[in-house]
Amino acid sequence: MIRRLAVIGVGLIGGSLARALRVAGAVDEVVGCGRSVANLERAVELGVIDRWDQDPAQAVVGADLVFVAVPLGTMGQVFSAIREALDPDAVVTDGGSVKGSVVADARAAFGCIPPGLVPGHPIAGTERSGVDASFAELYQGRRVILTPLPETAPGALERVSAMWQACGAQVTLMEVAHHDEVLAATSHLPHMLAFGLVDALARMRENDEIFRYAAGGFRDFTRIASSDPVMWRDICIANREPLGAMLERFGDEMKDLAETIRSGDAAHLLEIFARAKAARDRYVDGMAKGREEAPI
Amino acid sequence: MIRRLAVIGVGLIGGSLARALRVAGAVDEVVGCGRSVANLERAVELGVIDRWDQDPAQAVVGADLVFVAVPLGTMGQVFSAIREALDPDAVVTDGGSVKGSVVADARAAFGCIPPGLVPGHPIAGTERSGVDASFAELYQGRRVILTPLPETAPGALERVSAMWQACGAQVTLMEVAHHDEVLAATSHLPHMLAFGLVDALARMRENDEIFRYAAGGFRDFTRIASSDPVMWRDICIANREPLGAMLERFGDEMKDLAETIRSGDAAHLLEIFARAKAARDRYVDGMAKGREEAPI
Repeated sequence: MIRRLAVIGVGLIGGSLARALRVAGAVDEVVGCGRSVANLERAVELGVIDRWDQDPAQAVVGADLVFVAVPLGTMGQVFSAIREALDPDAVVTDGGSVKGSVVADARAAFGCIPPGLVPGHPIAGTERSGVDASFAELYQGRRVILTPLPETAPGALERVSAMWQACGAQVTLMEVAHHDEVLAATSHLPHMLAFGLVDALARMRENDEIFRYAAGGFRDFTRIASSDPVMWRDICIANREPLGAMLERFGDEMKDLAETIRSGDAAHLLEIFARAKAARDRYVDGMAKGREEAPI
Repeated sequence: MIRRLAVIGVGLIGGSLARALRVAGAVDEVVGCGRSVANLERAVELGVIDRWDQDPAQAVVGADLVFVAVPLGTMGQVFSAIREALDPDAVVTDGGSVKGSVVADARAAFGCIPPGLVPGHPIAGTERSGVDASFAELYQGRRVILTPLPETAPGALERVSAMWQACGAQVTLMEVAHHDEVLAATSHLPHMLAFGLVDALARMRENDEIFRYAAGGFRDFTRIASSDPVMWRDICIANREPLGAMLERFGDEMKDLAETIRSGDAAHLLEIFARAKAARDRYVDGMAKGREEAPI
């Protein structure tokens, strides 16, 4: 049970955590913090938070759990701002999509890794932003990856695990660098392709016509290109090495595929498409199965 | 009104056309043709077709409208097979995703472009295949591109337009080469990226783990990678020049983007992502609007 939860960044991720914990009866009081007063007032109106303070240091006073859900580029500032104001026993976790940069920012801000720090990443989200987009069920059946460090206190890890389980999520532990590579492949690379495709089409002459003839498949394929540009800029910068390497390799593979198409190598094309379809179909079955097994 | 419709290839596309025309009361009799007897018998059972013949020449006898909905690689064989059996006044149209290759196949099979030929492409579909996947509403509010040739009889064009409008579709006319370029951008390129991404991930060590941590965005993004590999092999071969060129350029752009990420050029990244998001959001609004205006 959380006595006072401070949510720094009351958007889709932070707002949904607060909502889920309230529904689960796992939190007494929620204090919000963010840059937009309108968004914070809306969060109070929606019952997501009880009160707010725009100063992170004020917002974390007396909080036994602090959840930082701001763009990766702002993590370091938040850590520096709350450093002196945190309760000695406060547990701090975050929702950042890259963990190496969060750990580096924490180390820089705190001068060390505090035992109460549990870096985390809920694998959930939609392309929408802001507290109005948040909902209590966002994390149900979803995976949350926690990347505790050698310095992390076992008790802090237990508290953050219990918090996510109360939201219906499945918690997995992973090493920081491994998390960043897995996510580069499954999330960051697809986002680059979606942003890149929509941007390439938008730059074409006759782009109005191009978009007019796009079918439903295109809409699904590019949905993630409606995600928050600032968040994705920060993710790219934070995970630049694994993502840059993967995207470069993918660019080469697409050029190879272009050559296969141009040369009319039908057998090779069929092999690639059949292998991809088999993996996709198997994966979707696996995911549906994982959902059923999830402790909802 | 169609007296006897012959559907060569009773799958998602051909089956949905037959269903839609039946619901609209726009067809008297539907004769099916295909390679799988089980699928044809299922089509009779579902009421999609009245009867079937596995020989295309027999299937088109007495038909006033023939719809060819087979993979692009099989179009030429179907045209050759039906050539002698067609009624003199029969109108022939197709559902192929590439129009240049269909026109070339028709010219080779018929020795010329028959006045009754109206190449067409309904911009609709799902990743599923077979008559069980077909449904009457597939074309409602969707666009159908027809690419009539100088040889095409105006009466034939009118009949095919009326057929699609009876299914609730919006008909647009376009030149053959222009169609193939527009579709390379909006449909064929995204499919290559989805197939390529899933294949790249499936080839990674620890691919089970990779797929396990993929979130909802990944599922939507890669849904089209579950499409029929044979159909897509044929589309690539049929549209190899425009698609090959576009995919090669995209591969270069992804390598440029990788370099931008690696160099940490935050301002340039934000510019790309913001432009893509703006285009995507504008496009989705436009598409939703188009749907409302569609003659459903």
